Amino acid sequence: MNLNDFSVSHTEGKARAGLLKTSRGYVETPVFMPVGTAATVKAMTPESLKTIGSQILLCNTYHLMIRPGEKVVNHLGGLNKFMNWSGPILTDSGGFQVMSLSKLRQLDENGVTFRSHIDGKKFLLSPEGSIRIQETLQSTIIMSFDECMPFPVEKKLAEKSMKLSSRWAERSKVSFTGANGSMLFGIQQGGMFKDLREQSALCLNNIGFDGYAIGGLAVGEPQEKMFGVLNYSTDFFPKDRPRYLMGVGKPSDIVGAVLRGIDMFDCVIPTRSGRNGQAFVQDGIINLKNAKHKFDEKPIDKNCSCYCCSNYSRGYLSHLVRCNEILGSMLLTLHNLYFYTNLMKKIRELIQRGDFTAFAKNFAT
Amino acid sequence: MNLNDFSVSHTEGKARAGLLKTSRGYVETPVFMPVGTAATVKAMTPESLKTIGSQILLCNTYHLMIRPGEKVVNHLGGLNKFMNWSGPILTDSGGFQVMSLSKLRQLDENGVTFRSHIDGKKFLLSPEGSIRIQETLQSTIIMSFDECMPFPVEKKLAEKSMKLSSRWAERSKVSFTGANGSMLFGIQQGGMFKDLREQSALCLNNIGFDGYAIGGLAVGEPQEKMFGVLNYSTDFFPKDRPRYLMGVGKPSDIVGAVLRGIDMFDCVIPTRSGRNGQAFVQDGIINLKNAKHKFDEKPIDKNCSCYCCSNYSRGYLSHLVRCNEILGSMLLTLHNLYFYTNLMKKIRELIQRGDFTAFAKNFAT
Repeated sequence: MNLNDFSVSHTEGKARAGLLKTSRGYVETPVFMPVGTAATVKAMTPESLKTIGSQILLCNTYHLMIRPGEKVVNHLGGLNKFMNWSGPILTDSGGFQVMSLSKLRQLDENGVTFRSHIDGKKFLLSPEGSIRIQETLQSTIIMSFDECMPFPVEKKLAEKSMKLSSRWAERSKVSFTGANGSMLFGIQQGGMFKDLREQSALCLNNIGFDGYAIGGLAVGEPQEKMFGVLNYSTDFFPKDRPRYLMGVGKPSDIVGAVLRGIDMFDCVIPTRSGRNGQAFVQDGIINLKNAKHKFDEKPIDKNCSCYCCSNYSRGYLSHLVRCNEILGSMLLTLHNLYFYTNLMKKIRELIQRGDFTAFAKNFAT
Repeated sequence: MNLNDFSVSHTEGKARAGLLKTSRGYVETPVFMPVGTAATVKAMTPESLKTIGSQILLCNTYHLMIRPGEKVVNHLGGLNKFMNWSGPILTDSGGFQVMSLSKLRQLDENGVTFRSHIDGKKFLLSPEGSIRIQETLQSTIIMSFDECMPFPVEKKLAEKSMKLSSRWAERSKVSFTGANGSMLFGIQQGGMFKDLREQSALCLNNIGFDGYAIGGLAVGEPQEKMFGVLNYSTDFFPKDRPRYLMGVGKPSDIVGAVLRGIDMFDCVIPTRSGRNGQAFVQDGIINLKNAKHKFDEKPIDKNCSCYCCSNYSRGYLSHLVRCNEILGSMLLTLHNLYFYTNLMKKIRELIQRGDFTAFAKNFAT
């Protein structure tokens, strides 16, 4: 298997189980990527991430260009050495965060000028700039620079924005050097409109990328709408390349998206929920702040074999959460990421056995 | 060696190296006890504490009686099971925190009535109540209930308070049942006055305790004053019992106190400093927030073999601290506790070899 190659080993309907070979090692798909915004998955050590089975992390270009700056990361050996994580790292392009976090942004054909949400310092992000920054960070998988529209959006605007993103995808590809053995992924846009999604994909296919992401979803639309778009949007991409649904999602989002042909995911839900005192269990989410857990000797999930469930009661975790103790965030983040990692492992095994469709129908978390 | 026995194996001047046998295992002295206020050493797992060599922890009765309440801890199996720490745990009596943290407190012969700093709820702490709560928590080493005076304080007040603490020590002893194989320590008071310290100690010796603590120090007095009191106050206690200096301290405080015959210490400095971005090194403290560390590839201490120094640069740690990332608190707390644990190990070895006095003279951190 060549570097940066992807092979699908099993399919069940549109669902695929596969293997991605990156310059930093193999990734079994479908895969969930924990979010390490500022070059740290909040409240986790890299060793813990390895222990629970994480294969690849996501870091945010927007945050890292602002703090500490890509030159600092590069000087300190690149993202992997910087954050002590030897596996693959995917960086987003910064486009999404510029839209959601920055101040006083101004967008034109060239790119986006914005002020940092931290100290108001002025920055420019363009396709060329984003790729250069991601290469300076020494990311394993680099995302092309795109514009992400909110939901809902009128078709005319969605079309205009998709076409801009297509031109930016082209410029991203041109400026990508492939240094460090990195891969480059393109990002499909086009809102909730099938013809626009198709146009976007055709354009990306013509440019040619190592993988294809579906952007512009998980922006506030109901799950039904998202699945509606996924019903057709994966079909426009070549079967031999990985497909990545950005920013998704809840466990049921992931299961439904795998069913529709998605291979890669990232989301802050497991980590952020953990810091908010919420824990994932088979049939939903439990809130440890709830008074009913105060005297509860049971672990979060008696069938879970993570470090948290093996050693701590709901009563203790509830106490930690009420006291805002850091250990509460550490233990619940670990449990939630273990839950997600195990869900993906189960999904892969079910696809390999041909039992995934039946499982997905009854999945409701 | 019997349960709750203490044996001094080596002495060098007043400095002692010894072994304390508790119901939860052995403790080599001199020892530093990390502070786990709310039944968690902030930002550390119990496994990490074991890995760096921590032998015994301190928890705060005041905090635990307020949240989650001693009955919750007892219901969930006692402090050890509650917090997943199998080694010994010392609990303070709550007296110090009532004075420093609570609101609207009222002190009389019986005890202290106060309102919680969390929700204003009314509580009463008396010698009998404090012992009952500590036994309900299933603490390994229980502290008698005392009044702690601020610095400076007039002799008349110091004397009156010391006499109250002596009567409370007697009541603490009477109400102590020794359930769970716990030990009970008495606390010397008497401010900066030699005759009062002597009277206090004589009174405690007559009552008879498993160990003796020196209270009323580390309350804002200069190091010189503290050492002045320690120069005589340890001499009033029996040689075959452990001596514990409460709330101390900086590394140089500890070294100077061991030189004066102290065996046990606790302090929030290593953990709190870690959460504030400060790291202990051989010749002092470095502040990771300082801009000069931004591009620094070096670890905090190239001679330190802790997990933090083995894997992370000052530049990365500086980044984490600036971003208020939880991992920054986790790594710096771990390093600082490792520094303290290693200092104590070195002190024990130096006493065993007879080289401690020379070391202490040149110690300045």
